[in-house]
Amino acid sequence: MGLDSDTRKMPQGISHDAQGLIDFNKAIIEATADYAVSYKINTAFYETLGAKGWDVMEKTLEFIPDTIFTIADAKRGDIGNTSSMYARAFFETLNYDSITINPYMGHDSVGPFLEFEGKWSILLALTSNPGSQDFQTLKTGDKQVFEEVLRKSATWGTDKNMMYVVGATRAEELSRIRQIIPNHFLLVPGVGAQGGSLEQVVKYGANKDVGLLINASRSIIYASSGTDFAEAAAREAAKMQGDMAKLL
Amino acid sequence: MGLDSDTRKMPQGISHDAQGLIDFNKAIIEATADYAVSYKINTAFYETLGAKGWDVMEKTLEFIPDTIFTIADAKRGDIGNTSSMYARAFFETLNYDSITINPYMGHDSVGPFLEFEGKWSILLALTSNPGSQDFQTLKTGDKQVFEEVLRKSATWGTDKNMMYVVGATRAEELSRIRQIIPNHFLLVPGVGAQGGSLEQVVKYGANKDVGLLINASRSIIYASSGTDFAEAAAREAAKMQGDMAKLL
Repeated sequence: MGLDSDTRKMPQGISHDAQGLIDFNKAIIEATADYAVSYKINTAFYETLGAKGWDVMEKTLEFIPDTIFTIADAKRGDIGNTSSMYARAFFETLNYDSITINPYMGHDSVGPFLEFEGKWSILLALTSNPGSQDFQTLKTGDKQVFEEVLRKSATWGTDKNMMYVVGATRAEELSRIRQIIPNHFLLVPGVGAQGGSLEQVVKYGANKDVGLLINASRSIIYASSGTDFAEAAAREAAKMQGDMAKLL
Repeated sequence: MGLDSDTRKMPQGISHDAQGLIDFNKAIIEATADYAVSYKINTAFYETLGAKGWDVMEKTLEFIPDTIFTIADAKRGDIGNTSSMYARAFFETLNYDSITINPYMGHDSVGPFLEFEGKWSILLALTSNPGSQDFQTLKTGDKQVFEEVLRKSATWGTDKNMMYVVGATRAEELSRIRQIIPNHFLLVPGVGAQGGSLEQVVKYGANKDVGLLINASRSIIYASSGTDFAEAAAREAAKMQGDMAKLL
């Protein structure tokens, strides 16, 4: 479940500021924790508030039960010594279980994240947005750039410390991706507000262990703009959990 | 000048915590402002301290004279609605003049940054690290991925709101890059601690307006680990400024 919490979209009864985001996230997490295997925090939404937003993020992490996997959807990545600092920030200071990483800068931008025992690096492969067609799908001989990313990066870590982001709006490409990385977990955003199909994702993306983390953000957290926002979020989360259970 | 300020590397007389970073950055900026046309703040180094680190970053920005160009070296980029949030965070909340952006997610991940009047988007093209050879230089027909990034992205904005990151350790490729984007400013990191040659960068990268922002970080800010760290940084900055003046 994606906590893309935006001060401008806070429901009735919640203030449109840092404290409002804290109250909102707390209520949403309490209402949905029974249905979510993971919470994904999109750092951009917190950074719009500057240092105060990072404080909201730190407080939000405290609300998440220890048994639930946390994802920093931060899309970081830089030269080695800088990636080391990002890894320390997200894995040590904030104690996230995982972080999304942009692979454009190659192996030494990813390596420092993989050195943290028990933590997961989630590399962008093929994303759900229109711009994914600009560079990710460029042909490099008989392959495409995102396939090169999968093939090469899969050798840097294992399926026990790496996952890949694959957009749900690209469901038809999931089976090709599964041929390259049969065992890695996939983080699949784009179901819900972005219009991807849950059924297609499971059909083409599941492996023998399921191997899918399917994300919805806006369709759940903004299910109601009234004071019943938490109950509405719980209903949406329960519905999606039920839809997944049926498909499996 | 890159403010890659690290609590673990603070010189004598400076505490190894958030307050130390503030004191260090203030002294460094005061000592070097006469020689620097820009300060580049590497967000990773601040995020290791969590919300407190973002607070250090906000305070550091206040020390920088208004006449000096500021760069958030943040390497952000995400789907459109998320990139909008990053743009608000860095251009409005923090009031940076520019931000570095990872182009992997394509046009809608960059577009939201370009909507801010008077602000600059600095796209990664060919970076200075060993991993730049993993995906950036992949052949796509008769071109390479980084050339596709330059060609395609140059149509999204203008040379008045976009720049490109080109690593100084790739000086031999600068002239090829200049053929594709003759008029854009280039942000060139990698001179100094990373070993790039200032002379080569100017020789192959300068255009008729110079068009280069050449960065050094560690070689200046950590020029001395004693209490004379600010004077030593000023000397190094003055030396580099002098070297550039000679080459021009």
